Amino acid sequence: MSLAQMSKRSAVEPFHAMDVLAEATRRRDAGHPVISMAVGQPAHPAPKAALEAAKRALDHGRLGYTDALGTLSLKRAIADHYHSRHGIALDPQRVAVTTGSSAGFNLAFLALFDPGDSVAIARPGYPAYRNIMAALGLDVVEIEANAEMGFTLTPESLERAATRAGRPLKGVLLASPANPTGTVTGKAKLKVLADYCRAQSIAFISDEIYHGLTFAGEETSALEVADDAIVINSFSKYYCMTGWRIGWMVLPEKQVRAFERIAQSLYISPPELSQIAAQAALGAHEELDGYKRAYAANRDLLLDRLPRIGFSIASPMDGAFYAYADVSRFTNDSMAFARRMLAEINVAATPGFDFDPVEGHRTMRFSYAGSPGEMAEAMDRIARWLA
Amino acid sequence: MSLAQMSKRSAVEPFHAMDVLAEATRRRDAGHPVISMAVGQPAHPAPKAALEAAKRALDHGRLGYTDALGTLSLKRAIADHYHSRHGIALDPQRVAVTTGSSAGFNLAFLALFDPGDSVAIARPGYPAYRNIMAALGLDVVEIEANAEMGFTLTPESLERAATRAGRPLKGVLLASPANPTGTVTGKAKLKVLADYCRAQSIAFISDEIYHGLTFAGEETSALEVADDAIVINSFSKYYCMTGWRIGWMVLPEKQVRAFERIAQSLYISPPELSQIAAQAALGAHEELDGYKRAYAANRDLLLDRLPRIGFSIASPMDGAFYAYADVSRFTNDSMAFARRMLAEINVAATPGFDFDPVEGHRTMRFSYAGSPGEMAEAMDRIARWLA
Repeated sequence: MSLAQMSKRSAVEPFHAMDVLAEATRRRDAGHPVISMAVGQPAHPAPKAALEAAKRALDHGRLGYTDALGTLSLKRAIADHYHSRHGIALDPQRVAVTTGSSAGFNLAFLALFDPGDSVAIARPGYPAYRNIMAALGLDVVEIEANAEMGFTLTPESLERAATRAGRPLKGVLLASPANPTGTVTGKAKLKVLADYCRAQSIAFISDEIYHGLTFAGEETSALEVADDAIVINSFSKYYCMTGWRIGWMVLPEKQVRAFERIAQSLYISPPELSQIAAQAALGAHEELDGYKRAYAANRDLLLDRLPRIGFSIASPMDGAFYAYADVSRFTNDSMAFARRMLAEINVAATPGFDFDPVEGHRTMRFSYAGSPGEMAEAMDRIARWLA
Repeated sequence: MSLAQMSKRSAVEPFHAMDVLAEATRRRDAGHPVISMAVGQPAHPAPKAALEAAKRALDHGRLGYTDALGTLSLKRAIADHYHSRHGIALDPQRVAVTTGSSAGFNLAFLALFDPGDSVAIARPGYPAYRNIMAALGLDVVEIEANAEMGFTLTPESLERAATRAGRPLKGVLLASPANPTGTVTGKAKLKVLADYCRAQSIAFISDEIYHGLTFAGEETSALEVADDAIVINSFSKYYCMTGWRIGWMVLPEKQVRAFERIAQSLYISPPELSQIAAQAALGAHEELDGYKRAYAANRDLLLDRLPRIGFSIASPMDGAFYAYADVSRFTNDSMAFARRMLAEINVAATPGFDFDPVEGHRTMRFSYAGSPGEMAEAMDRIARWLA
C-alpha cells in the first residue's frame, strides 16, 4: 500500500524537551524514580482559588465554546491586571485569550507574516519559535545573544543581521525573562528596541510568559514602552497552569479583528474551564509568590551546585526557572549526554541543541521549577554519576 | 504611530458562525432571551462520568504537560473504542490526541501539504477547512456536492476538479456525517473514494467528528475501508464536550512521528484535564444515546416546521445536528437576514455564506443540538416573524 507523501515542512526539528518528557514519562510509568528537570513545568498545582473555581463550574454544568478570543470577563480581569501591576489602562477588547502561549505565537506568526518574511529571534532561544516559523514558511533569522550582547537583542545586532540576510526584517521576537538564558531585558533597553522596530516598520513581539518570575533586574512589559507591541503571556509558568493550556495576548486595537478571524477557524475558542480557572488564578498572588520563593531557593542551590559538579553557568539566570549550563567538560554531544543521564540516573534535562542549533551540543538546560527535595537529589545523583 | 503591516494571509474570511455566537453572547449578557442555533454545540454538559473524573483530578492536584500526542491511557481507550465500535484492532500508538479537531485539521494540513498544494473539499462544507488551508497557503479546491452528486465527493467529481484545476490533487478531505448538509457517506462509497485516492497518491482525510450522530444511513469509519486514511474525530459533538477542546486523530504508523514533531512545537500537548474527562466520556454511551434521541426529536420538529415556515430543506439531514435550509423565498442576503433575525427575534443561526461562498447567500444553517423547548420556541418566533 502506498503512503501519501509528507510535506516538506513536516520535516521540522523535534522539540527535544518534549521527547525527553515522553521518555521520562515512560520510565516513570515503568517504576523508575525519575526526576524531571526537562520541561518548564512547576511542581505545584494551579492556585487553590483556580481549582475551586473550576470545580464550581463543573457543578453548574455545560462548558461550551466562548468567543474566539475569550470571555469578556477574563479579558477584563487581564486588563485590570495590567492596571494594578504595570499602571497601564488597557481596553479589555485589546486582550486576546489564547489556548496557551503556543496559540499566541502561531497566531502572531500567521497574522503578521507571509511565507518568506524574515523574523529575528535570539539564539539560544525557545525552540518552538523556530519550529513554528519553519512550518509556516518564515525565514528564521537567529541572532546570537551572548555575554557580550548582554544575552539580549539590540538595534545594532538587528541591523547586522538584516545586513547579513541582505533584506529587511519584518519582525522581531524577544522574550524577557528569556528561556533558556534567564535574561531580563530592562525598561530602557526594551524601549530602545521597540523604538527601533517602530522606526523600521518591524513588528515587535514581546514574549512575557515568565513574568512574575524575575529574581534580579527589572521586569518590564513591552506595553510600558510601546503601545503597539504584540505581547504574549501565559498562565503556565508563574500561575502554575501548564496542563490547562491557557494564555493571552495584548494586541494593537487595529489588529484585533485579524487575529480574531484566524483564531475562529484555527482554535474556535480557548478551553472554557481553563478560562474560568485562569480568572481566579489572577488573584492568587500570595500563594504564587510563595512558590516563587521556593524557586529562588532552588536557583540558589543550582547556582552553588552546578559549578561544583563541573557545569558552568552559561547565562544570567535573572528570571524564568532555568539554569543553562555549559557541560563541555564532560561531553561534546548534549543529546547523547541527556539520554544517558536519564537512562543511568533517572534525571531528565534538556539538551542545549533545542535552544541553540550552533552551540547547543555543549550545553544543557535544567528547569528548577521542581520541589526543593527533588532538585537537591538530582544534583546529588549527577555529582555521584560524574565523579 | 505607525503600525506594522498585517500579513496577506491574515485576510482570511471570518468564521461567521463564531461572529454570530459573539453577537448572541453580547445580546444574552444584555438580558435578551437569545436562542442559539448558530454553532454546533450540544445543550447538554459533558457526561456525568466525565465531570466526576475531572473533579477527582482537580482534587488530586497538578495538571501538567502530557506527551504531545496525548496520554497513553487515553490513546489506549480510544483504540479500544475502535475495537468495540468498528471491530478494528488498532495500535494505540497510531492515535494522536489533539486540542479539538481544530488542531487535527491544522496538523494534517501542515504535515501533509506544502504551500500551493491542491486539496479538495466539498462545497457546502465546514468553513474552517477553507480558512485554515488559506492561511497555510494551500490551494483550496471546492467541489460542489449537490443533490445530483449525493451531496458527497466521488472519484468522478475529483477527476473533473483536478482537470479544471490543471494539476493533480494532493489531498481530499471528506466529512461524514457532513456539516452542514448532514450527508452520511456509506461504506461502499467511502471505499471507492479511498481506493481512488490511494491509486492516485492523494492523501485521504476523513472527518468523523459527527460520528455517533447518524439518524439514517450507514455510519462508517474510513479505517474500516482504508488503513492509510487520516482520521479526525472529536469529543465535542456526540460526547458534548465542545468547551473542553479535545479530539483525536488516527494516523498511518509511518506518519505518527512527523505529526508528533509538529504538535510538540505548535500545541505542546492537549489540555490534561480534558484528556482525563474524555477518557471517562468514552464509556458514557447510555447517557449520550439519550441525548441523541432528543436530537432526533428536534430533527423531526425541524423537518416538519422549517418547510411550513417557507425554508426548504436543502440537504439530507441524515447525520450531525444541522438543518441546512434554502431561505431564498425571504432573502437573497443570508448574512443580513441572520443579523436581522438575531436583532429582531433573538434567534441566532448561521448564514450559509460560511459554508458555501457561491450559493450561501440564499441558505442558512440551523443547529438542532439545543433543548426541545428552545427549538420549538425558535420555530414559533421565526414563523411569527415571517408571517
